[in-house]
Amino acid sequence: MNKTAIVNRYKDIRQRTAKICAPLHTEDYVVQPVVDVSPPKWHLGHTTWFFETFILIPYAPHYRVFHDGYNYVFNSYYETVGNRVIRTDRGNLSRPTVDDIYRYRDYVDEAMLALLESDIDQTIYDLTLLGFNHEEQHQELLYTDIKYILGHNPLFPAYDENYHAPMLVKTTGPASFIPMKEGLYEIGFQGEGFCFDNERNRHRVYLNHFEISPNLVSNNEYLEFINDGGYRDFRYWHSEAWDWLKKNQIHAPLYWHFIDEKWHQYTYRGLEPLHLNEPVQHVSYYEAYAYTSWKGLRLPTEFEWEAAAQQFTWGYNWEWTESAYLPYPGFTKAVGAIGEYNGKFMVNQKVLRGASAVTAPAHSRITYRNFFHPQLRWQFTGIRLAK
Amino acid sequence: MNKTAIVNRYKDIRQRTAKICAPLHTEDYVVQPVVDVSPPKWHLGHTTWFFETFILIPYAPHYRVFHDGYNYVFNSYYETVGNRVIRTDRGNLSRPTVDDIYRYRDYVDEAMLALLESDIDQTIYDLTLLGFNHEEQHQELLYTDIKYILGHNPLFPAYDENYHAPMLVKTTGPASFIPMKEGLYEIGFQGEGFCFDNERNRHRVYLNHFEISPNLVSNNEYLEFINDGGYRDFRYWHSEAWDWLKKNQIHAPLYWHFIDEKWHQYTYRGLEPLHLNEPVQHVSYYEAYAYTSWKGLRLPTEFEWEAAAQQFTWGYNWEWTESAYLPYPGFTKAVGAIGEYNGKFMVNQKVLRGASAVTAPAHSRITYRNFFHPQLRWQFTGIRLAK
Amino acid sequence: MNKTAIVNRYKDIRQRTAKICAPLHTEDYVVQPVVDVSPPKWHLGHTTWFFETFILIPYAPHYRVFHDGYNYVFNSYYETVGNRVIRTDRGNLSRPTVDDIYRYRDYVDEAMLALLESDIDQTIYDLTLLGFNHEEQHQELLYTDIKYILGHNPLFPAYDENYHAPMLVKTTGPASFIPMKEGLYEIGFQGEGFCFDNERNRHRVYLNHFEISPNLVSNNEYLEFINDGGYRDFRYWHSEAWDWLKKNQIHAPLYWHFIDEKWHQYTYRGLEPLHLNEPVQHVSYYEAYAYTSWKGLRLPTEFEWEAAAQQFTWGYNWEWTESAYLPYPGFTKAVGAIGEYNGKFMVNQKVLRGASAVTAPAHSRITYRNFFHPQLRWQFTGIRLAK
Amino acid sequence: MNKTAIVNRYKDIRQRTAKICAPLHTEDYVVQPVVDVSPPKWHLGHTTWFFETFILIPYAPHYRVFHDGYNYVFNSYYETVGNRVIRTDRGNLSRPTVDDIYRYRDYVDEAMLALLESDIDQTIYDLTLLGFNHEEQHQELLYTDIKYILGHNPLFPAYDENYHAPMLVKTTGPASFIPMKEGLYEIGFQGEGFCFDNERNRHRVYLNHFEISPNLVSNNEYLEFINDGGYRDFRYWHSEAWDWLKKNQIHAPLYWHFIDEKWHQYTYRGLEPLHLNEPVQHVSYYEAYAYTSWKGLRLPTEFEWEAAAQQFTWGYNWEWTESAYLPYPGFTKAVGAIGEYNGKFMVNQKVLRGASAVTAPAHSRITYRNFFHPQLRWQFTGIRLAK
Repeated sequence: MNKTAIVNRYKDIRQRTAKICAPLHTEDYVVQPVVDVSPPKWHLGHTTWFFETFILIPYAPHYRVFHDGYNYVFNSYYETVGNRVIRTDRGNLSRPTVDDIYRYRDYVDEAMLALLESDIDQTIYDLTLLGFNHEEQHQELLYTDIKYILGHNPLFPAYDENYHAPMLVKTTGPASFIPMKEGLYEIGFQGEGFCFDNERNRHRVYLNHFEISPNLVSNNEYLEFINDGGYRDFRYWHSEAWDWLKKNQIHAPLYWHFIDEKWHQYTYRGLEPLHLNEPVQHVSYYEAYAYTSWKGLRLPTEFEWEAAAQQFTWGYNWEWTESAYLPYPGFTKAVGAIGEYNGKFMVNQKVLRGASAVTAPAHSRITYRNFFHPQLRWQFTGIRLAK
Repeated sequence: MNKTAIVNRYKDIRQRTAKICAPLHTEDYVVQPVVDVSPPKWHLGHTTWFFETFILIPYAPHYRVFHDGYNYVFNSYYETVGNRVIRTDRGNLSRPTVDDIYRYRDYVDEAMLALLESDIDQTIYDLTLLGFNHEEQHQELLYTDIKYILGHNPLFPAYDENYHAPMLVKTTGPASFIPMKEGLYEIGFQGEGFCFDNERNRHRVYLNHFEISPNLVSNNEYLEFINDGGYRDFRYWHSEAWDWLKKNQIHAPLYWHFIDEKWHQYTYRGLEPLHLNEPVQHVSYYEAYAYTSWKGLRLPTEFEWEAAAQQFTWGYNWEWTESAYLPYPGFTKAVGAIGEYNGKFMVNQKVLRGASAVTAPAHSRITYRNFFHPQLRWQFTGIRLAK
Repeated sequence: MNKTAIVNRYKDIRQRTAKICAPLHTEDYVVQPVVDVSPPKWHLGHTTWFFETFILIPYAPHYRVFHDGYNYVFNSYYETVGNRVIRTDRGNLSRPTVDDIYRYRDYVDEAMLALLESDIDQTIYDLTLLGFNHEEQHQELLYTDIKYILGHNPLFPAYDENYHAPMLVKTTGPASFIPMKEGLYEIGFQGEGFCFDNERNRHRVYLNHFEISPNLVSNNEYLEFINDGGYRDFRYWHSEAWDWLKKNQIHAPLYWHFIDEKWHQYTYRGLEPLHLNEPVQHVSYYEAYAYTSWKGLRLPTEFEWEAAAQQFTWGYNWEWTESAYLPYPGFTKAVGAIGEYNGKFMVNQKVLRGASAVTAPAHSRITYRNFFHPQLRWQFTGIRLAK
Repeated sequence: MNKTAIVNRYKDIRQRTAKICAPLHTEDYVVQPVVDVSPPKWHLGHTTWFFETFILIPYAPHYRVFHDGYNYVFNSYYETVGNRVIRTDRGNLSRPTVDDIYRYRDYVDEAMLALLESDIDQTIYDLTLLGFNHEEQHQELLYTDIKYILGHNPLFPAYDENYHAPMLVKTTGPASFIPMKEGLYEIGFQGEGFCFDNERNRHRVYLNHFEISPNLVSNNEYLEFINDGGYRDFRYWHSEAWDWLKKNQIHAPLYWHFIDEKWHQYTYRGLEPLHLNEPVQHVSYYEAYAYTSWKGLRLPTEFEWEAAAQQFTWGYNWEWTESAYLPYPGFTKAVGAIGEYNGKFMVNQKVLRGASAVTAPAHSRITYRNFFHPQLRWQFTGIRLAK
């Protein structure tokens, strides 16, 4: 990227973050109804803190930190740069205010733009790219966290009554499975552009013959599983999934409500009747697995998914795979705080592949590895069958 | 009270509530850092809901409810009028917004003032008086909850940099104890004005000879207890107090911070050096008991306190007593939802007597019975010695 | 007591403890199904440790401790004599074995009997009496803990198929209430024999006119409360009782089982149909209060109970009172570890008066103050009405 | 196997189970100090229940169940055959007694031997083999659970003062790593004998070049990690490992005690000074990973382990691998209760390879896949380095 391109991309990304928050009231920025969800104002501050901490402080001449206390408040899991804020506490902090944080964003943006318009070296360039991708990840979290905050309010307020997801081919329904040949496949990122450290090294994986569906499982198909008693028959579930389901009284995907004898779903437009032909969303890995088990089929591995992905449409839902989140051969951590970016989460999480309707534009690629704990459902997660 | 008096008192009380909140930012209205603290906007809505539910809906002709969902959101423990909101959830609700709630207040105020200017009967009058006293109780909770919210923010923001407590005689330091004769004393409310149901019936109590201090224990005196190892010697503590202290790593009153080798206290003006000659505040009953135990003295009972109260100055701190919160002889619950006001809390709580510097004006009387669980500290609680 | 009398009483009490355990299998001595219940072998060791620690070690010439590790294992809440064993851990300890502990009992008994047959002074005499009363308290706990252990086993084994409670007048059913005059009453222990520190000082209490039932509430009467929906109507319950009831899914007294459309109760003889005319047992204070509230009546205070006790039969159930467990005027703690006997529990507990069918013979008196947390039910607890 | 062989193997395995328990006192059979550990008597009953439920009841003519209640007590996770006993409750059950359970074993053994001496078909034969392997798994659990029970008793009793692990080459210390060529390897069970369903299907895996140590990490080497502050530096740990370590105050392997300035370890013989040259044991996956991270190396995957296993000695410790426990290609569950044997645990667990000094003889093979949650340490688990 040349100087103009990087400056423009910086502006675009930072403005897009603010635009996602535009429909919010001040109060919506503050709350944290559950530990995995962060208050929107925290995302605004944290993405700003990232540029300040990893680029401006070490590399911008004469840069002065905006506020001494913000490192403590907006740090996340990067333990090398200070004591960690307990994640559950984020929703208890009324200060800094939303206005304070927008001022912080403006202050850091000014300094970043001045830096980016100077002659920057490769290190700054790489960190800026990482900052872009980091902020794009938080843009998606803003969308999912906002949905959770409003969707768990007893008044079911809309985020935007005219919200429409980007046009996407939402292929659901029965379809012939795509057969894939046994053999060696190359997996992982290769080439020029940006990728996260967890997508490397590109390496060979030997796959047996398998078949994969070109379509996602629809709400209608998932409803058959519910109506067949799927949530009441332990045989479809992992042992710990069954404990989770009973403890949390789970009997449908997140945001589904059975009201006046009809299924509804909370959307960004408020509560609506269930859209039967759309892909099922907001299911945990546990539920995705139980559904496949009921079907007598299975989820693809992340390698199968990547090997076959050219042959189907993806990008509507993050798709649970059977694969655990583990390092690729030759994976090494970067030195210092940035090195903690991905590796420290490589235990007890499942890989999701693809992208969702709220993933930032140009943020997705066929080798992208998303990961969450198997019980989580507040992301736009769905199911693709394999056998 | 005549019509003008009641209308003016209604206006005064409602305005005072808003005035307490005036220094807050919108974000400060929203959070709930701990279960016992409620978000300020909840107090604003709940006190309004009280007038709407118990007066306007049953008695105001043609009154239309402001919003159907608010009963669910602003109800507290009154289970007869609907499902209870789990208290811990209050801090997760971004909607209704602060502006919505002020509109709700205006709407209800208009209807209440119209009603109060009509000819009201005794029932409405009594309920209005109860509403006044209810709102005054929440005014005190607003003060203490705001202190908790700001005092637990890592930036230690001031509520009001010029805040000063009402002028009060803060008598501390050594003083001769007041001797009180053995005999029968009359305890409880009698007379014309308002009192809560828990202050009746007035009845006789036989007291042995006792002595009571005219002064409150000061920060300086309490510091001696700390410096003598009081928090490390189980002999001064109740068994369950010792468990509480160890589990929560308590080693000083709430809001005390040991910074740079000096004790500080968080006040409405921000963090300040400890005011040694002021009465100690924000101690639990457990700590109050342990202090008296270390001193070889004891707390007064609520009956001793009331019998002797004419003889000392009170009103700076709620004062822990040794008495459990129990019904007086002849106590009966009112019929219906209002009947739940006090009786249902009469287990596992301790009585506090007096009033504090943030108690609403004209809200205190010598027979007033406040009550909290013995581990709580976020109210302005203090210690008076007896023997 | 003369020397022979005290020696004989020592033997009797110690043998009675072993006799209570005689029907047990070794396995029954070991388990701790809930935190309030202790394994029988712990009671056997702890009562022995009491004599060893407070009498033999300080006063018996040349006494050698049986085992260095036992102080750690058999200490309870006496923090002055060493680190406390976490109560929940008692059920995890397979060693010392039951045989080890009986050997420990024999060893200590031999030393105690030798000591008691020498010329002992008043201190040893007083401590021995305290040891007797302490062991008698644990005899009752043995009965109730054994009932809990066997009564929570899915096989519902009998403790003793021929068990019969001592002959007691079990007066239940409707009866005229006993009227008691307003006035001053003397409350507390006076005289020569043994009493616990919490029964002193004897002092005057002024009581209003009240009436008290000569009979206990029966299973049949309590069943009416259940059948009338008493466990589903929050109006009868304290606020925290209602939370307790919902969280623990309580809908009948402990040991009641609704099997094949009929109510049963677990007894020392195994599972039996509910004995309708016997006094209801194994209810918490919360349930006792809710029952009286449903009846439009109330529980007596401990002072009312003591003032009226000469006029009715008691001793079948510990009877919940409305009184919180608090010190009497002039109560002072003894010096040292013994001083922790009662005072440190004087918060958040309710007083029970009377005695139960498994209370040790000669262990009861009209001034005896038992105390438990309001949610506990594994003791033989019942209800006497007042108004 | 012919009839005599299977009868003899049945007798040998059943006797070996009893022999493992021979040094126990009755009390040791009963307790459950932590949820993952089961009381020895439960293992004795459960392995017997397995033969009764899956072989005798369906296939033995005229077989009468020993006791109706035992299915409830001794079932484990097999939900198809009845309600599951909550695992945490096992340690609360004093009945059935140890004697009862040995009678149960005798009764079932008699019936099984009669059946095995008749002409059995392939189904019974296969189930009997599964029963053998199932009991052998529980023999190892008996060893590890007994160690936990005695090793967490404050008296540190020995299991057997003359215990010696089977002679095993305990290779530790520095050694040249074994280089392994990039390429396709065959993984999984093939052949005639018994294997578990999770070892199939044998399939091809493509491995990059890697190197693996012929030796296990020793206590001495692990001590260097501790002394270098390994437990205090979050950079070596996974994010959730760090939370686990802080929450549970972990600072050394299980059974290590720092007493009088020296490291000790609890063994079957009691407490002993740390054996510096023996392989480190009782570490969690979290600790194994942190150690490799500190070393700048890594754990092998389970495929690397299996591909290289012919080239080193194994069998002293279960060795943590980097692999998550997932199904092999073509894995399918058997029909019915037996089908739940392995598949339902395939989430959030790590694969361990090899065998330990307390694994049953002839129970180990190169394709065997053991699995535990990453935080568990009470098995004999150790570390082999790869790069």
